[in-house]
Amino acid sequence: MSPAAHLHEDRLFPAEPGVRAVARALYSQVRDLPIVSPHGHTDPRWFSQNAPFENPAALFLAPDHYLFRMLYSQGVALDALGVPSRRGVSRTDPRSAWRLFAEHIHLFRGTPSSIWLNHVLVEVFGITDRLDARSADAIYDTIDAALKTEAFRPRALFDRFNIELLATTESPVDTLDHHHAIAASPWGGRVVTAYRPDAVIDADHEDFFDALERFGEITGEDTMRWQGYLAAHRQRRVDFMAAGATSTDHGHPTAATADLDPGAAEALFDRVVTGKADAAETELFRAQMLTEMAAMSLEDGLVMQIHPGSFRNHNAALFASHGRDKGADIPVATDYVRALQPLLNRFGNEPDFGLIVFTLDETSYARELAPMAGHYPAMKLGPAWWFHDSPEGMMRFREQTTETAGFYNTVGFNDDTRAFLSIPARHDMARRVDCAFLARLVAEHRLTEDDAADLAADLACNLAKRAYKLDAPN
Amino acid sequence: MSPAAHLHEDRLFPAEPGVRAVARALYSQVRDLPIVSPHGHTDPRWFSQNAPFENPAALFLAPDHYLFRMLYSQGVALDALGVPSRRGVSRTDPRSAWRLFAEHIHLFRGTPSSIWLNHVLVEVFGITDRLDARSADAIYDTIDAALKTEAFRPRALFDRFNIELLATTESPVDTLDHHHAIAASPWGGRVVTAYRPDAVIDADHEDFFDALERFGEITGEDTMRWQGYLAAHRQRRVDFMAAGATSTDHGHPTAATADLDPGAAEALFDRVVTGKADAAETELFRAQMLTEMAAMSLEDGLVMQIHPGSFRNHNAALFASHGRDKGADIPVATDYVRALQPLLNRFGNEPDFGLIVFTLDETSYARELAPMAGHYPAMKLGPAWWFHDSPEGMMRFREQTTETAGFYNTVGFNDDTRAFLSIPARHDMARRVDCAFLARLVAEHRLTEDDAADLAADLACNLAKRAYKLDAPN
Amino acid sequence: MSPAAHLHEDRLFPAEPGVRAVARALYSQVRDLPIVSPHGHTDPRWFSQNAPFENPAALFLAPDHYLFRMLYSQGVALDALGVPSRRGVSRTDPRSAWRLFAEHIHLFRGTPSSIWLNHVLVEVFGITDRLDARSADAIYDTIDAALKTEAFRPRALFDRFNIELLATTESPVDTLDHHHAIAASPWGGRVVTAYRPDAVIDADHEDFFDALERFGEITGEDTMRWQGYLAAHRQRRVDFMAAGATSTDHGHPTAATADLDPGAAEALFDRVVTGKADAAETELFRAQMLTEMAAMSLEDGLVMQIHPGSFRNHNAALFASHGRDKGADIPVATDYVRALQPLLNRFGNEPDFGLIVFTLDETSYARELAPMAGHYPAMKLGPAWWFHDSPEGMMRFREQTTETAGFYNTVGFNDDTRAFLSIPARHDMARRVDCAFLARLVAEHRLTEDDAADLAADLACNLAKRAYKLDAPN
Repeated sequence: MSPAAHLHEDRLFPAEPGVRAVARALYSQVRDLPIVSPHGHTDPRWFSQNAPFENPAALFLAPDHYLFRMLYSQGVALDALGVPSRRGVSRTDPRSAWRLFAEHIHLFRGTPSSIWLNHVLVEVFGITDRLDARSADAIYDTIDAALKTEAFRPRALFDRFNIELLATTESPVDTLDHHHAIAASPWGGRVVTAYRPDAVIDADHEDFFDALERFGEITGEDTMRWQGYLAAHRQRRVDFMAAGATSTDHGHPTAATADLDPGAAEALFDRVVTGKADAAETELFRAQMLTEMAAMSLEDGLVMQIHPGSFRNHNAALFASHGRDKGADIPVATDYVRALQPLLNRFGNEPDFGLIVFTLDETSYARELAPMAGHYPAMKLGPAWWFHDSPEGMMRFREQTTETAGFYNTVGFNDDTRAFLSIPARHDMARRVDCAFLARLVAEHRLTEDDAADLAADLACNLAKRAYKLDAPN
Repeated sequence: MSPAAHLHEDRLFPAEPGVRAVARALYSQVRDLPIVSPHGHTDPRWFSQNAPFENPAALFLAPDHYLFRMLYSQGVALDALGVPSRRGVSRTDPRSAWRLFAEHIHLFRGTPSSIWLNHVLVEVFGITDRLDARSADAIYDTIDAALKTEAFRPRALFDRFNIELLATTESPVDTLDHHHAIAASPWGGRVVTAYRPDAVIDADHEDFFDALERFGEITGEDTMRWQGYLAAHRQRRVDFMAAGATSTDHGHPTAATADLDPGAAEALFDRVVTGKADAAETELFRAQMLTEMAAMSLEDGLVMQIHPGSFRNHNAALFASHGRDKGADIPVATDYVRALQPLLNRFGNEPDFGLIVFTLDETSYARELAPMAGHYPAMKLGPAWWFHDSPEGMMRFREQTTETAGFYNTVGFNDDTRAFLSIPARHDMARRVDCAFLARLVAEHRLTEDDAADLAADLACNLAKRAYKLDAPN
Repeated sequence: MSPAAHLHEDRLFPAEPGVRAVARALYSQVRDLPIVSPHGHTDPRWFSQNAPFENPAALFLAPDHYLFRMLYSQGVALDALGVPSRRGVSRTDPRSAWRLFAEHIHLFRGTPSSIWLNHVLVEVFGITDRLDARSADAIYDTIDAALKTEAFRPRALFDRFNIELLATTESPVDTLDHHHAIAASPWGGRVVTAYRPDAVIDADHEDFFDALERFGEITGEDTMRWQGYLAAHRQRRVDFMAAGATSTDHGHPTAATADLDPGAAEALFDRVVTGKADAAETELFRAQMLTEMAAMSLEDGLVMQIHPGSFRNHNAALFASHGRDKGADIPVATDYVRALQPLLNRFGNEPDFGLIVFTLDETSYARELAPMAGHYPAMKLGPAWWFHDSPEGMMRFREQTTETAGFYNTVGFNDDTRAFLSIPARHDMARRVDCAFLARLVAEHRLTEDDAADLAADLACNLAKRAYKLDAPN
């Protein structure tokens, strides 16, 4: 028999009874607040079409690189898990994939994936056994049956999850049809887009030249010329705002920004779009475009997010066989001080400009990012990201940023996920860890309990709404 | 009504009752020890003239970049806070500035500034309400009235604070008149200087050429020639020692040192003082001068402090309008291993040479600085500095340096502050955090309670006296 | 009178009673498991000859750079401690050396050395006083007398310590005579070697050219030609496997790997062995050889260990007088993402290839190493190493790697020591710290107590056996 699954009401709280009591009291005031998710990667099609999710393996395993990368690291083939390759969707039997996952469940001990998974199984599906090799089939059947019911369609889950707002992320060549369909539907769920132009900015992206061409088609601008290219961005930003966007997002290899004069920027663009740019010029163009995007944000008010520092597709053979986003992106040491200076010297003192900076290099929290966010009016810190979106990672974020940047130069939580069902689990984890941190400050008499209660609500919802300008319904 | 202000007797101690009891016992043995402040930036004029402090805003806000940078980061203008600009002292009404500060007091939740401020208001001024928008005027009045009394003049506060020694920091072109006046006065307070020659060493400093000229005038040496320049340093080091100095201090962008032969050093100097040096030569000259200063320390016994790794004046517009020290200095990643090797290879094995190294890059604690200080007889670790002079920062310092360098290769606490009234608060915080760290080691049976008691006193006073050679009265 | 020595049964466990109870329960299940030591630097001569250890100073001080570096950092001369120099063994009276050590014992407060030393004195020698200046002579006498008895000969201690396997580390020019003698003896202790070819790979090593020549003599291959050189490696790897080796070990300055085509590799080798290689070529050759070693590991199954990031012999004067391994090796910032990519792109997806990577740069735990080990089938993380092999260091390792790599991409504990008597103390520390970490996860409801019990045993023994392929007796 498998052991019983259980969500302990005090999970993620400090063990010391006095601190735990404070954490529990703080959490009780924020646990039922609505979910505000201003940055993520769910598929808007789910909410426009509201079709049932396919099966447990396709829902849990195929899109979740946290799960399949761990299995892969211990010798499990991606194809056997149903993860799509460049040849298309794997034809693996989903139940076999699920069993394989369950047989390796011990690999996830001590990981956030384990906490999220357990939360979803217990809370969303009402499962009472822990997942392991013995319970795999029964749990598969329970989930599979549930997915066929109305209550487990995407919109019903969205409503049940108490999501006030969910942002997705789209490319400038996306038609936004799904967002338009959602808006035109009678359903009241608020699903908005965000403008993520990497594919038309980063000439190292494998789709760059194709995307640039479609960017011209979709806007009617001559995107092979600098002025037309900038106009196309402006036009699409307006389109995205009409689909609810309040932010842009930029996932460059580094945080480099540049501030070239217009002639130099245009000459650089010409080299990039004609394929003549070398690696340094490609990097400089990305850098210049961050500053161009910032300039447009001053015009149109979109909040700007920078997510740098991932060495993408580190595993060449896996990239060749399976493509992007297969768990082979690895963080690298990232400088922010010199990198962001050109952009900040132009726009850093503008209180109406919102620049949210993320990092995969935790060494920058206390050394660079908190000091910068604690000075520049425009700059705020995004939450602990990706590999660091975990109990220990979130705690390090607070411990290393709060004393210099305070809480009010941070922007609340992002779930940043493709795994829709894990969204409540992720926000719950963030709320618990923040309450645990606040409780320690209270117990050490570094914060009053009243202030901590205010902060718990601010960290759970209010800061996100303010930083992402979400107060007005779209 | 504003909530009551309160300094909890157990603040900053761990919550677990057993550990807390040990921390409390250790702290009770060091709380009343005198304050030894071997490195800081208070104004010696205060103690030579002993004039009343002007008003609450001028005393608290204008000199404290920890406070005004946080306010600035949330859109508050420096001028509205009374922070001086290049056009001179702001003509802001000090009460308005104080109100603006009080209205934004929530920004400081969880920061060391909040703890220091609360300590000063309660302990120094006897205030019983917490500062916020409602209490702002009443607290302003209380402080303002106190400042007009004899008991709140600088010397009276110095004595009340139980300060055994306070070091200030002066430039080689300073006449040291205030120190001479203090020495000549009947007042017994021990206020000493420290030799900080950056302005005549760093050709990137905006005052470099002016300072070099005054350096010649004040010494009668030809400071445009290498031998005269070195002789001027030697002469002023003697002058500073006569004003109580036991240390020098060096705030270069990096920790780079060099060991050029005399001819090459002279040729480099010639290029620097004739304005021909490029960026690399300017850096090399700073590097060479650290080794020259070390050589002089071997002659005259002054302890040498290196404070590297701050990217100064990151915000160009703010530097243009408001000048230095306005909260826009940002730490950068800093290498010590290669940087310090030239100096250490010459003088690192000298047990009589004291080299105290600081960092703004916490990654160097366990990786570089503790291993180096745990090996070289000359080298010691300065305490957690600037952005890291905080409960979490001090704790990380101990956690990451003790196991490799021990406690006895560290030098006790530096308050390093311009905010005179916060000095007792800062030393109290350091003593509490050190006792909290020691208490955990005791509770985990890694240290005996007897050894911890010895250490608490060593960390509070004795190590600073020994490392800075303060045992003999000046 | 000296204070009583005492090993508290709860040492290194968290103070909070609930967490401590869990830690104690977990530890009780692993404390008596045998010691598996797959990586270390003890002298195989001890076990082949089984002669008595010489005296307390020669046993404790002379080989232990953790101890003498701390004493040296506070002005104690190495010669006075009996540490050998290039002129040979110091003629210091061992009792005087021991007294000097005891007089400075306060320097070790809060360090792992203090915990290890106390453990050895109490557990191995039954000493009841703490070592200090007063007890120095009596403790010296007790140890000295014990060392003259049969029960304190190396093999008897090995058996008493319950060591299941102990790996030493030898150079390719070692005859392995001591290992052969151990194997031929009736004694059943399992002492194996490991292949550490740095001296014939690293042209910056002071013995490189001599070692290369002896490498040719011992193998009969022409080690001045590329094919002969590679054949010599292959031959010696077979010899080492015959002496029980299951692993190779590589201590390069960086983690750089390369994947040159065969012609380029051969041309590079020619420049290196003829002394024509510059610094970059010397580095490239080391990098290429890691990939060559990996290729051989795919053939012969030896697990590959990479230990990079130490700046060796930082103190030039000390290196001149005393040579290597005198406490003057300092860690430096180390990149793994770009450095390991060439090797991983060739062999990282091979589940049968075992690559164990260590670091002295803790910033790489969460940022680089855990993400890489959590993806590549071949790669595993070595435990906290050298300066980080300490309670705080081990805890940071778990806190910063577990959430991304899990426990099963780590390889258990290495004591990595030259100090034979400290081996049980070091394994005990590792088991206690791991149980403390697991206990916190249990107390925070992030791990079940059953899973934690499994993990405690895996971390204590099983992972090491699996990762180092030690299951079959040699």
